[in-house]
Amino acid sequence: MGQPHPNIDALCAELQTTWRSDIPLAAAMGIEVASFAAGELVVRAPRAPNVNVHGTAFAGSLFSVCVLTGWGAVWLALREHGTMGLIVVADSRIQYRRPVTGDILCRCRLERAALEPALAALAAKGRAMLPLLCTIDVDGKRAVDFEGTYVVNTKQGH
Amino acid sequence: MGQPHPNIDALCAELQTTWRSDIPLAAAMGIEVASFAAGELVVRAPRAPNVNVHGTAFAGSLFSVCVLTGWGAVWLALREHGTMGLIVVADSRIQYRRPVTGDILCRCRLERAALEPALAALAAKGRAMLPLLCTIDVDGKRAVDFEGTYVVNTKQGH
Repeated sequence: MGQPHPNIDALCAELQTTWRSDIPLAAAMGIEVASFAAGELVVRAPRAPNVNVHGTAFAGSLFSVCVLTGWGAVWLALREHGTMGLIVVADSRIQYRRPVTGDILCRCRLERAALEPALAALAAKGRAMLPLLCTIDVDGKRAVDFEGTYVVNTKQGH
Repeated sequence: MGQPHPNIDALCAELQTTWRSDIPLAAAMGIEVASFAAGELVVRAPRAPNVNVHGTAFAGSLFSVCVLTGWGAVWLALREHGTMGLIVVADSRIQYRRPVTGDILCRCRLERAALEPALAALAAKGRAMLPLLCTIDVDGKRAVDFEGTYVVNTKQGH
C-alpha cells in the first residue's frame, strides 16, 4: 500500500461521509469505517437495522456491507496513490456459512499483488479490474465469504 | 405451481408485510410485491431510496431485491402447497451488466422442474435445496443476473 497517507483518518471520515450522504441504504444500515491500517479496511454495521425475519443479519445487509467494504478499499487505495476514478462492481459471489448474530464486522485487504498491476493499467489505459475478497467472522469463525470484481475507470469522476 | 391459490392476493400482501415489518432494510428500500402470476413473482423497489454515489441503483439494493425476490418465490410456493419452512440463502452470484437508472423491477420464476423435487425432499427429509434465477431488466435489456441457492427446512418456523 506504499507509505501511510499523512491524513488517513480524514480519508476514512470522507469515505464514511460519502457513503452515508450519497447512498441512502448505507445510511439506513448505519455503516461506519471502523479502521484502516496495514492495507486492511474494517467496516462495521450495527445489528438492529440489519436484521432479517429470523433475527440474524439480513443476507442483503451482509452483501451490502461486503460490496461497500471492497469499494472503500479501492477508493482508499486510489486516494492514497493520488488518483481518483469511477469504481463499480461488475460481478460478485457471496457464500453464507453461518448466521451473523451481532454487529456486522467486515474486513478487506487489498493486496499489493492485485493493486500494483491495477495502478499500472490505470496509468497506461485509464481502466483496470481489481478482484477482491471480503470476509465477515463471528466468534473467530468464518460466517461470510465475498469475492467481487471491481472495475475502475480514471477517465470519469468519483 | 399446481392449482392457483384461492387467495393469492392475500398471500402477496402477507409476504410484503412480512418483509417490511421484519426486515428494516426492506422497509428502507420501499420494496413491494408487484405481481405473482403463472409462477412468476415480480418485485419492485423505487429509485430514490436505492441510489448509489453515481445516481444509479446501488449494487447492494439490486442484490437485496434479488435475494428477497428469490426468497419470496420460495415462500409463496411453500404456502401454495400448504407447507411452511425456514428459508435461507446459502450461496449466490450476481452479475451487473448495465446500470439500473429508474425503479428496480425484479423477476423470479420458480420452475416446476426445480420445485417438484424440492417438495418431495421436504416431505421425505424435511430439508431441500432450491436453485433460483432472478433478473432485472432495463428498457428490455438484461441489467442484472442473480443465481441463488436457497435451503428450506420445514422442521423450523417461518
